Amino acid sequence: MRILGIDPGLVSTGFGVIEADGPRLRYIASGTIKTREAAIGDLPGRIKIIFEGVREVVSTYQPNAAALEIVFVNVNPQSTLLLGQARGAALAALVSADLAVAEYTAVQMKKAVVGHGQARKEQIQAMVARLLQLPGEPGKDAADALGLAIAHAHAGSTFAAAAASTTLTRRQHAQYKGGRIY
Amino acid sequence: MRILGIDPGLVSTGFGVIEADGPRLRYIASGTIKTREAAIGDLPGRIKIIFEGVREVVSTYQPNAAALEIVFVNVNPQSTLLLGQARGAALAALVSADLAVAEYTAVQMKKAVVGHGQARKEQIQAMVARLLQLPGEPGKDAADALGLAIAHAHAGSTFAAAAASTTLTRRQHAQYKGGRIY
Repeated sequence: MRILGIDPGLVSTGFGVIEADGPRLRYIASGTIKTREAAIGDLPGRIKIIFEGVREVVSTYQPNAAALEIVFVNVNPQSTLLLGQARGAALAALVSADLAVAEYTAVQMKKAVVGHGQARKEQIQAMVARLLQLPGEPGKDAADALGLAIAHAHAGSTFAAAAASTTLTRRQHAQYKGGRIY
Repeated sequence: MRILGIDPGLVSTGFGVIEADGPRLRYIASGTIKTREAAIGDLPGRIKIIFEGVREVVSTYQPNAAALEIVFVNVNPQSTLLLGQARGAALAALVSADLAVAEYTAVQMKKAVVGHGQARKEQIQAMVARLLQLPGEPGKDAADALGLAIAHAHAGSTFAAAAASTTLTRRQHAQYKGGRIY
């Protein structure tokens, strides 16, 4: 299974693609979609860059599934609204490409990658590099995106293991999709 | 000029299409994109319906320009985040179809349609029906969307009139695009 992780943001959206074969993970690609070339205040321009960037990543790497970070409300309500719009554009790009989208919180991602939910950015970068046997550490947004893909790979193998031992499929499906909070 | 107005929302997104020939306005179509068929809590499903619904309206009615309501932060931050995502999906659908998107606040739309910014929903519905010579009143979300298209038609003719009398084009362009607040 080829998994695309997306860490959405209005200025920088991280992406990471891995292949998961049971417990074995393989790095495919990662990077960031930057919206700096849009003029300051040009929200439609930024949304276009995010949407088209995510679509381009999907068409280049052809993932079978996507994992998107669940974003949280900011102290500044206006920032919350802007982040929401960036996430909406990324999500639209994924679902309009007919990808199933699982959603994970940053805490769920950190637990999957580092083993606990309080990991710092640098710990995520280091562990992602180790788990995927990278020659160097990815950037922070790309590391988060790869971490989301890893979280989804783990959820998938947990799901597969559970599916083999029980028939409570509805409950497993909820688990597989990650913790949605809305 | 054929203008598409969009009033975005997670549950119901209004759309309205008009044709503007100078001060003359002609009704083309209006309606709402409802996301009720998505399961409760299925945000990706709702985002897909909004994105594909707006894309379908664009491909059916082939507008030259779009006007999108500037949404405001809600008392509930989680609602703000959800509304932001719905707006981001609608905006992605417009810009990915290469439409220029002007943005107006509800107050700007009400001033253009009713003449003052404190108009109630029913007044907007009644005035939109009168301005466009409709046989009946459109629904509330569709009326707001038609009102946004009317606001953009007014801004466009103000722009055209101003362009004929002065060469301060940069300032006029800012006015033409509507008041962006972010």
